Amino acid sequence: MERSTEYNKITPMSTSANTRASLSFAPLELNLARTWTTARNTSNQKKNGLLTIRCDGVTGLGEAAPNVRYGQSYDSAAAAFERITAAVEGLDPMEHRAWIARAVAVAGKDLEVVAALDMALLDWKGKKLGVSVADLLGIPRDPRRMPVTSYSIGLDTPEAVRAKVREAARFPILKIKVGTAQDEAMIDAVREVTQKTLRVDANEGWRSVSEALERISALAARGVEFVEQPLPASDMPGLEALAERSALPVFADESSRTIHDIHRCSSAFHGVNIKLSKCGGITPALDMIAAARAAGLKVMIGCMIESSLSIAAGIAVAPLCDVVDLDGNLLIAQDPFSGLEIEGGRWALPGRPGLGVDWSVDGPARAE
Amino acid sequence: MERSTEYNKITPMSTSANTRASLSFAPLELNLARTWTTARNTSNQKKNGLLTIRCDGVTGLGEAAPNVRYGQSYDSAAAAFERITAAVEGLDPMEHRAWIARAVAVAGKDLEVVAALDMALLDWKGKKLGVSVADLLGIPRDPRRMPVTSYSIGLDTPEAVRAKVREAARFPILKIKVGTAQDEAMIDAVREVTQKTLRVDANEGWRSVSEALERISALAARGVEFVEQPLPASDMPGLEALAERSALPVFADESSRTIHDIHRCSSAFHGVNIKLSKCGGITPALDMIAAARAAGLKVMIGCMIESSLSIAAGIAVAPLCDVVDLDGNLLIAQDPFSGLEIEGGRWALPGRPGLGVDWSVDGPARAE
Repeated sequence: MERSTEYNKITPMSTSANTRASLSFAPLELNLARTWTTARNTSNQKKNGLLTIRCDGVTGLGEAAPNVRYGQSYDSAAAAFERITAAVEGLDPMEHRAWIARAVAVAGKDLEVVAALDMALLDWKGKKLGVSVADLLGIPRDPRRMPVTSYSIGLDTPEAVRAKVREAARFPILKIKVGTAQDEAMIDAVREVTQKTLRVDANEGWRSVSEALERISALAARGVEFVEQPLPASDMPGLEALAERSALPVFADESSRTIHDIHRCSSAFHGVNIKLSKCGGITPALDMIAAARAAGLKVMIGCMIESSLSIAAGIAVAPLCDVVDLDGNLLIAQDPFSGLEIEGGRWALPGRPGLGVDWSVDGPARAE
Repeated sequence: MERSTEYNKITPMSTSANTRASLSFAPLELNLARTWTTARNTSNQKKNGLLTIRCDGVTGLGEAAPNVRYGQSYDSAAAAFERITAAVEGLDPMEHRAWIARAVAVAGKDLEVVAALDMALLDWKGKKLGVSVADLLGIPRDPRRMPVTSYSIGLDTPEAVRAKVREAARFPILKIKVGTAQDEAMIDAVREVTQKTLRVDANEGWRSVSEALERISALAARGVEFVEQPLPASDMPGLEALAERSALPVFADESSRTIHDIHRCSSAFHGVNIKLSKCGGITPALDMIAAARAAGLKVMIGCMIESSLSIAAGIAVAPLCDVVDLDGNLLIAQDPFSGLEIEGGRWALPGRPGLGVDWSVDGPARAE
């Protein structure tokens, strides 16, 4: 397989040592398998960040996936990494909740870097102790507890959508991006070629409660299972009014960034999409799952466009969730990490120590 | 030191093997250092249960502390242990969240046995991996993150109360049991001999909102910091009305058994007292702490009359809490377990693998 030149240029952009551990942050550039379009934007490439922690001869890795929706970029992530590195000075990697608390306090909007730090710490701890991150957290191993992931189909022409759906034959559940005037046409195009379970994500694309109600009714008639983020997160009154009258269950995504959003979401949604890069990693996600359960909300675990490194971290907590949408690594051309296995749409919990992935043999050059 | 005959009689009452691990449950009888009286009852002895898990040559221990308030007894705990043992058949001790989910499903009212199971699993996992339970969970190690524990003074005559307060000289914070017609006299007796921080626990002892408001005003005038469970848990309308007008912050105890109570508590309390034996152990307590934070509630970690084994489990999560009330082991005559250290009212996180306690040399005979 041909190597992307971007991958070969991975070099630590900044390195910093605290008393116990040394940390570094470098670009992790991902090429998308095909142009990716949502109600918000279109892209062919994603510049993520790779956070490395080294301590006692063991290396832990984590990935930061900046999202423009939250004002994040690779550069803002790199700047946040500098602040975080200073804040965690002197902590032992074993006390990872102390790292996360200090990192959150200085990360500002860049919680994707806290997520990378949390992944790296747990990857490190698992490797250090010789257990998988899932075992470290006591996650149920029964494969039946792992919900089948959805596979996302971006916005496109009806013809292209039909082609994408046919190519996604091995995925039993599809998540269709909507949020434009062509929503019904999108779903009709999908339904022409499959009767699979469909979920839709409007990415805040609809403009009013009445438009959303109309669209949701049309989607319900086409056998859609639920809708994600129908209205802008800023329109809480609209979202509350919608939840009461919606023909389909409504999940929060842009409205549910961190645990602090859970209480508010309980009056406007039936469930929440938790993403590690939004909330700050596995540890905050476990807390957020607990808070969502306590508030009577269904729990979905989602992702950004990201490599198998981040997806492995999502898989580790997926058995605690009702709905899984972990497909970011399937949308990129050359995954820099390998080690994950999927069958019938169900990810397997990796058994190897740490997050269970390693650098791809045919992927990018290592940062080290 | 003379051994109690009860301790020497500890023998496994029931033993059961699943594919991976063998489990047993036996009485752990504790003699109280002095008669213990609350608004609910008086006792001189406590019959707890010791849950043992053995797997791969490693032994994990947990303690069940039945509470009459929740319809629990040693016998009901032993019966719940049988049901739980059958339900966890075939699970690996590493996947402890799977054990807890199955145990909760069959435990009925006896969540104290789930707590014992969770402690034993984490004690086992820590010993197996060579780390303390606190390190396994990533708990902050900074001693300043460990809140000073309160020390409890049971209901008694003013003279006896003064004597108890003098004897408690090494504890900077006292928790005074109230909930009778003599409340102000109790606090006045305490205030005659100390100006320490005082908290009070009414144990559902007051009968009406107006009585509670009157008592709380009198307690506020005597410099009390907060009040625990002023009215019966069954009187939610009263508790909600009280929270709005109370001169002091109000914490839930009997109203906050499990994570399912958190949402309701957010409208009637300023904080919740989380106890491992109420909620089902360390793992459910971590979830409950997260849910309480998300609901804007302060978090207290409390205990029952129990040995250093249970207290060690409480200490492992105490750095995540605002208020600590871990003194159950200080109220018993011969602690069967040792290894915990307290200074200036602040427990130290044990560094040894597992929960960090071992059988007392001068304590009871071992069950094995």
